[in-house]
Amino acid sequence: MQQSPHPSQSWSPTSAPATDATGLQQTYTAIPHVRPTTPLLDTIDSPADLSALSPEALITLADELRLFLLYSVGQSGGHFGANLGVVELTLVLHYLLDTPADQIVWDVGHQAYAHKILTGRRERLTSIRAKDGLTAFPERAESVYDTFGVGHSSTAISAGLGMSLALRYQNRPQTVACVIGDGAMTGGMAFEAMNDAVQQDADLLVVLNDNDMSISCSIGGFSRHLAMLWESGYQVDITEDGTPAIKKRPDMQTFDRRKRHTEQRAVPKLEDNLFKAIGFTYFGPFDGHDVPELLRVLSRAKQVKGPVLVHIYTTKGKGFAPAEADPVGYHAIGKLPADNSKAEAAPQPAPALKYSQVFGQFLCDKAEADNKLLAITPAMEEGSGMTEFAKAYPERFFDVAIAEQHAVTVAAGMATQGVKPIVAIYSTFLQRGYDQLIHDVALQNLDVTFAIDRAGLVGEDGATHAGVFDYAFLRCVPNMLIAAPKDENECYHLLNTCYEYEGSTAVRYPRGAGVGAPISRPAECYPIGKAVLEAQYGDMQAGTHIAILAFGTMVAAAVDSAERLTDPDSSDFIADCAVSVINMRWVKPLDTEMLERLIADGVTHIVTAEEHMIMGGAGSAVNEYLLNDSAAYTARPCVIYNIGIDDRFIAHGSPAEQLADCGLDADGIVRQIRTIAA
Amino acid sequence: MQQSPHPSQSWSPTSAPATDATGLQQTYTAIPHVRPTTPLLDTIDSPADLSALSPEALITLADELRLFLLYSVGQSGGHFGANLGVVELTLVLHYLLDTPADQIVWDVGHQAYAHKILTGRRERLTSIRAKDGLTAFPERAESVYDTFGVGHSSTAISAGLGMSLALRYQNRPQTVACVIGDGAMTGGMAFEAMNDAVQQDADLLVVLNDNDMSISCSIGGFSRHLAMLWESGYQVDITEDGTPAIKKRPDMQTFDRRKRHTEQRAVPKLEDNLFKAIGFTYFGPFDGHDVPELLRVLSRAKQVKGPVLVHIYTTKGKGFAPAEADPVGYHAIGKLPADNSKAEAAPQPAPALKYSQVFGQFLCDKAEADNKLLAITPAMEEGSGMTEFAKAYPERFFDVAIAEQHAVTVAAGMATQGVKPIVAIYSTFLQRGYDQLIHDVALQNLDVTFAIDRAGLVGEDGATHAGVFDYAFLRCVPNMLIAAPKDENECYHLLNTCYEYEGSTAVRYPRGAGVGAPISRPAECYPIGKAVLEAQYGDMQAGTHIAILAFGTMVAAAVDSAERLTDPDSSDFIADCAVSVINMRWVKPLDTEMLERLIADGVTHIVTAEEHMIMGGAGSAVNEYLLNDSAAYTARPCVIYNIGIDDRFIAHGSPAEQLADCGLDADGIVRQIRTIAA
Repeated sequence: MQQSPHPSQSWSPTSAPATDATGLQQTYTAIPHVRPTTPLLDTIDSPADLSALSPEALITLADELRLFLLYSVGQSGGHFGANLGVVELTLVLHYLLDTPADQIVWDVGHQAYAHKILTGRRERLTSIRAKDGLTAFPERAESVYDTFGVGHSSTAISAGLGMSLALRYQNRPQTVACVIGDGAMTGGMAFEAMNDAVQQDADLLVVLNDNDMSISCSIGGFSRHLAMLWESGYQVDITEDGTPAIKKRPDMQTFDRRKRHTEQRAVPKLEDNLFKAIGFTYFGPFDGHDVPELLRVLSRAKQVKGPVLVHIYTTKGKGFAPAEADPVGYHAIGKLPADNSKAEAAPQPAPALKYSQVFGQFLCDKAEADNKLLAITPAMEEGSGMTEFAKAYPERFFDVAIAEQHAVTVAAGMATQGVKPIVAIYSTFLQRGYDQLIHDVALQNLDVTFAIDRAGLVGEDGATHAGVFDYAFLRCVPNMLIAAPKDENECYHLLNTCYEYEGSTAVRYPRGAGVGAPISRPAECYPIGKAVLEAQYGDMQAGTHIAILAFGTMVAAAVDSAERLTDPDSSDFIADCAVSVINMRWVKPLDTEMLERLIADGVTHIVTAEEHMIMGGAGSAVNEYLLNDSAAYTARPCVIYNIGIDDRFIAHGSPAEQLADCGLDADGIVRQIRTIAA
Repeated sequence: MQQSPHPSQSWSPTSAPATDATGLQQTYTAIPHVRPTTPLLDTIDSPADLSALSPEALITLADELRLFLLYSVGQSGGHFGANLGVVELTLVLHYLLDTPADQIVWDVGHQAYAHKILTGRRERLTSIRAKDGLTAFPERAESVYDTFGVGHSSTAISAGLGMSLALRYQNRPQTVACVIGDGAMTGGMAFEAMNDAVQQDADLLVVLNDNDMSISCSIGGFSRHLAMLWESGYQVDITEDGTPAIKKRPDMQTFDRRKRHTEQRAVPKLEDNLFKAIGFTYFGPFDGHDVPELLRVLSRAKQVKGPVLVHIYTTKGKGFAPAEADPVGYHAIGKLPADNSKAEAAPQPAPALKYSQVFGQFLCDKAEADNKLLAITPAMEEGSGMTEFAKAYPERFFDVAIAEQHAVTVAAGMATQGVKPIVAIYSTFLQRGYDQLIHDVALQNLDVTFAIDRAGLVGEDGATHAGVFDYAFLRCVPNMLIAAPKDENECYHLLNTCYEYEGSTAVRYPRGAGVGAPISRPAECYPIGKAVLEAQYGDMQAGTHIAILAFGTMVAAAVDSAERLTDPDSSDFIADCAVSVINMRWVKPLDTEMLERLIADGVTHIVTAEEHMIMGGAGSAVNEYLLNDSAAYTARPCVIYNIGIDDRFIAHGSPAEQLADCGLDADGIVRQIRTIAA
């Protein structure tokens, strides 16, 4: 094995021996249950350890890294395909760059597992996404090599440009490299950043990791453009002095499937290059699994002044045959069951429906009954439960790519023409379309329904993906109706209720499975702004009467709490106490009649409970009403108390761990109520 | 004058006589003080009236329309340059299309004055932007011809695509045309929409109105790309059957100034066309003031299937010599003084500084003292008061174009490298960067300061530009500090305080001039989260003690109110009453010690006052603290009352009219306090 000292600064193709030009690494067919032998990888405790390796050794290391990734993700669950696809790229970037002085920014950080392994976190990778374990995405607090927190898409070029500009201003000649996927490039802010990088003439190396898909399939004009660049049969190569040179593209047999895109195109050609048009220096496409080629291209590209884009092709799931064959199915995987676990064979109860499945069922049912229904997703067809609908009603299904701003406004445009669009969007991503929701939908009170999925704490994805701000940012917007179902059945009917309402509405529901409530068809319209008395415990003539106003998912925990607080056999028992649980159903409009009735009934404590920040949340709405608009409350105030998430970001963990951490399980609710009423 | 009946569907260049190919209209040098004679324009009460006109008559009409625009905007004040630039385009679109069945979407609707004139609102145009007058932007409630409310930038292609898709789904063969400026095209959502339009293969006519600038000067790679298309000297013309045909571009002498852009480019060429790359059919560039040419091109382009972009060049301020010479200065103008007004000569007090000027002064002062300061604006250099700073510190000034998402994240990237970026942004546009503020700034608690201008009610720009949601959407985000200065001097020092704080902060200040408070240098750091007792009126031993907790601009009105409520000679007098006014200064963190002190002092009424929605606002923060965290309050509750904006969008009007409408002037505060305490 040849050794080339300090190749990270000086490596050039002429100083390295020729290697297998295809650069194909091993392909595995199974996920190992036991830690594989990775002798070379075990010597890499930081990127500096790479510098002693020859290019051939990097290929060996790529194999070991991939094998270790298979094992580790099998242990932890997590994002899978994207990580297997960037093994070679990650190695080569850390080999060529002098990290952490040089900066690597990973767009949508779920492709950063190999990066974490190479930067001193190899033995902790099996803890990823678990409470107190590694985070699912790069996180600045976790490692000096994690230059920027990236959980949402399309931020890397902006962040990297900011770094580059700040470095230039300080005369620090460090390299900034951004890695961004083809799916993320459809997000408008990537375009904004490219536009600005050219304006600033910033030294910025953007690696476009083109694996031909976002989570769903990457779509739209941009994707076709990339396919066209491929189909041209040519390549903009990089010469030794860093200038572009057009030549016939070498064979890359692994990428044949890309041809499907371009059947409808008559004359693919290399001109009309979008990146060149915007002002970037463009090189590509190159084989992103060919280590020597990556070394050659990237070592040259990082010397080029100004904004440079290197376009590489990779295969999602690369090196693991089942994932290469089914990249969508292997976008992320759950933990492997332990090898000899008896639990595997144990009978499982029928799983409850996921809320996204409830939404999918509603879509299909309603679409059959109402031909005005159209549905829009920003690249989350599977995640949002829309696959069946998309198959059944392709002409009514619109996947607009990772483009949340556009998703909201295209729906608004549709609504002006007498149809009834539904935007399916995760709570955390609706933050991207906030201005559009205000300005394009609510201000015009257009008939758009937002189906807000992944609301509340989302578990292993952690703080970047938590949907815990939506009540606050939606509630202040006039015209918006906001519904919060307590279970799957209510979710179905509240979706229907909001859909039928002619105006701007949102139904907010959590990630994952519900409580198992069966859906009672046909779809009903619930009264708007009306809460429901869910349960009462204790003697209603008791001296203490606590009303728990529970929003959405908190209803079940509130009922448990109420039982415990009024059960004489429980250590949580409060003597002479009754507890009513109200399923509020609506954050806006609030059921103010219900509030007045509680006051009139002489309730002594009103406790609100929500899976959302306390600040500005649903509880705040209750406070505002009672303090400002209730003469009865003002005449005889009772105690008001808000249960929700404190003013901090909540780290990843299981949903149950997160709820417990926030005091939002029955234990936490009981504990908090006892502090004010026991 | 030739008559061609129903030309809106059938006009073609062969059926029309040749006209002056330059298409140059009259150029005016002064704004008329009296309504000019416009005999032809007076016959146009709806777009249908255009159909009887010959192309020559359209040129005459363009002159009259422009003259009327000059007069009318002189009467009302308002956006100016952009409207003069699209006179011919507006005429031709309404001539060729069958509005309102066909749909025209105007991006950033401040270019829609000519559209309003032609669609039945001619005689009401002088009322534009005044209370109960026409809105500054298209508004669906105002006219059936206003297809979409557009006050914010870059929404038109998304909205138009939504319309087109909904029309296609319903088999309605109507045309959708979007008009978008070159500045607005830098907004990422325009790119998202183009990407999707190609994916959908939607019939959509996009007219790119390239006037070589947004409000500031349009910048970046996209702008250079447009300049390159110009500099190529070629044109993609449109043949009779709608196919592209490259030919030498005809002379367009009025556009010579564009050459400045491209000095640094060696070989301009027509290839690498961004619009073609993304998949649009591209035609252009054409002279947007040449009526016959516009008729020829657009009548053909609207027949082309799929997404089509027609690139025209226009001159901002066209036809009014002073505005052509100074397009930035004439972006918008104030009302002309009445001709013989004595008020003109009356001595005026020295005008108070605008808050944007205070920000500009802070920037310059601080930049001199601290070389870590960098400043970023999304295309609002002048509006944000940054012109002097940009001149003095060009290497520290970053105008990133209309790109709010990117503006926030590029600042976050900078902050990771040890500099201290300030993002200057209007409150209403920060809605566009909300996700980035959460995910890229606050979650990492990066040292970014947001200077939030135009917060609260903004007057004549109306509901689309109101900055009345920011407390709610910022307050719920952990790590954010939010300061609200009561006047110019506090604004200066709170900017300094937040800048010096190492974390994520925001200072929120209003549009326009302050109260005239002189700035006391040097800059101080105020204690974070500390309020100030502003004034006390009445006998502190009185039976009623009202504390008004005033946020930001509400301090002055609160003081006025306090005086009146405790003045025995005032009809607003409340007997046996004292009023304290607290200048809260901080929305987050709240001064909870101050709250506790008020409770301990036996205050009977706590009234919050803010220029913001009540829902989720600063008052809500006070509610949350007292209800949840104050044992003293719980033991002896006082009355709490929140003054702010009710749950509705506030229409345009003068700032004073808007404040009165919302009960946020002293009259309103007095009235509301008397309902709870008199």
